[in-house]
Amino acid sequence: MSHPDAFTRLIQALCVLPNVGPKTAQRMAHALLQQNRQGAAELAHALQHALKQVNHCLDCNTFCEGERCNLCADPQRDPQRLMIVHMPADVAAMERAHCHDGHYFVLMGQINPIQNMDLNSIALEKLVQRLARSTISEIIIATAATAEGDATAYVLIELLKAQPYRISRLARGMPLGSEIEYVDAGTLAQAVYERKQLNHTP
Amino acid sequence: MSHPDAFTRLIQALCVLPNVGPKTAQRMAHALLQQNRQGAAELAHALQHALKQVNHCLDCNTFCEGERCNLCADPQRDPQRLMIVHMPADVAAMERAHCHDGHYFVLMGQINPIQNMDLNSIALEKLVQRLARSTISEIIIATAATAEGDATAYVLIELLKAQPYRISRLARGMPLGSEIEYVDAGTLAQAVYERKQLNHTP
Ligand SMILES: [Zn+2]
Ligand SMILES: [Zn+2]
Repeated sequence: MSHPDAFTRLIQALCVLPNVGPKTAQRMAHALLQQNRQGAAELAHALQHALKQVNHCLDCNTFCEGERCNLCADPQRDPQRLMIVHMPADVAAMERAHCHDGHYFVLMGQINPIQNMDLNSIALEKLVQRLARSTISEIIIATAATAEGDATAYVLIELLKAQPYRISRLARGMPLGSEIEYVDAGTLAQAVYERKQLNHTP
Repeated sequence: MSHPDAFTRLIQALCVLPNVGPKTAQRMAHALLQQNRQGAAELAHALQHALKQVNHCLDCNTFCEGERCNLCADPQRDPQRLMIVHMPADVAAMERAHCHDGHYFVLMGQINPIQNMDLNSIALEKLVQRLARSTISEIIIATAATAEGDATAYVLIELLKAQPYRISRLARGMPLGSEIEYVDAGTLAQAVYERKQLNHTP
């Protein structure tokens, strides 16, 4: 079965969506053109509008409309503490946890240690600029507890260690509410390895 | 519908099994007596045999046949380090994680902070006796990351803090392999709160 060129092009275009392969894309294209041309038109406009309106915050690098995001513009946030995360969704998760009252920097990616440690996959330059014009004294590296998160943290530590920041990383160990019996071996080993001493006896 | 007394008694007896209520117990009793009398007989014998053979290890308090369990009898284990856990299944989980080469003590329970902090629900006296005749210098409290685990750890720390042991507790934080976005708020807050400093700058 051969499609009109425009249809083929739409299928290919839809394949940029995460987890959408040619088969799914073909089904999507068919549904949009056959049953929901209004929805398709709105999608096109929303994409164009977003491309025009959504920039990266000049301070924290997250997506925002305008120059700075609400969080960076908030005078209530502690200007001395900066938490570095991979993605905007991580900022949202931290805000839900109410555990950080400082600012964020969003790397918009992670370092892949298996492929090539490509430093261009995170916004390092912008981070350096951000730090250069700040009053930050403490940096909290909040990367994922994965190989990519470890590689990203490693790069950040190498970049920052010569500078006068207090640098820390999220604790790793037993997740809240977990029973020993049901925690995976790697996490248990980590929890024992990083066990917290409770007294000062030798 | 009324059952013969022996059947009713069996139903009630089956209700001691975890997560078995009267309805499930009735179905079990029916299945055993109607379809699998041989299995029922074997269950009865296995119970009697276990009751006769299975004791608590004199050292670590886990279930074992004989006086001491294999682990306590193993001369390869570090005699200076003792890990305290709730249940035998926790020992098995730790052994799978290959992260502790010392000995264990199994409390065979946990303290319930909501009901009554009943100290009789854990083998405290036996622990004290175990410590009195040991060469232990480090104690690792490996209770669950739950309210019960915290209450149990609290009781242990109160009991042990005046004595010359190095006492530590499992780290709590991000489980291995986890992405910030998908970690629950409580665990995130814990990971930030117990963040690990990576340098010695002020
Ligand atoms: Zn911002
Ligand atoms: Zn034992």
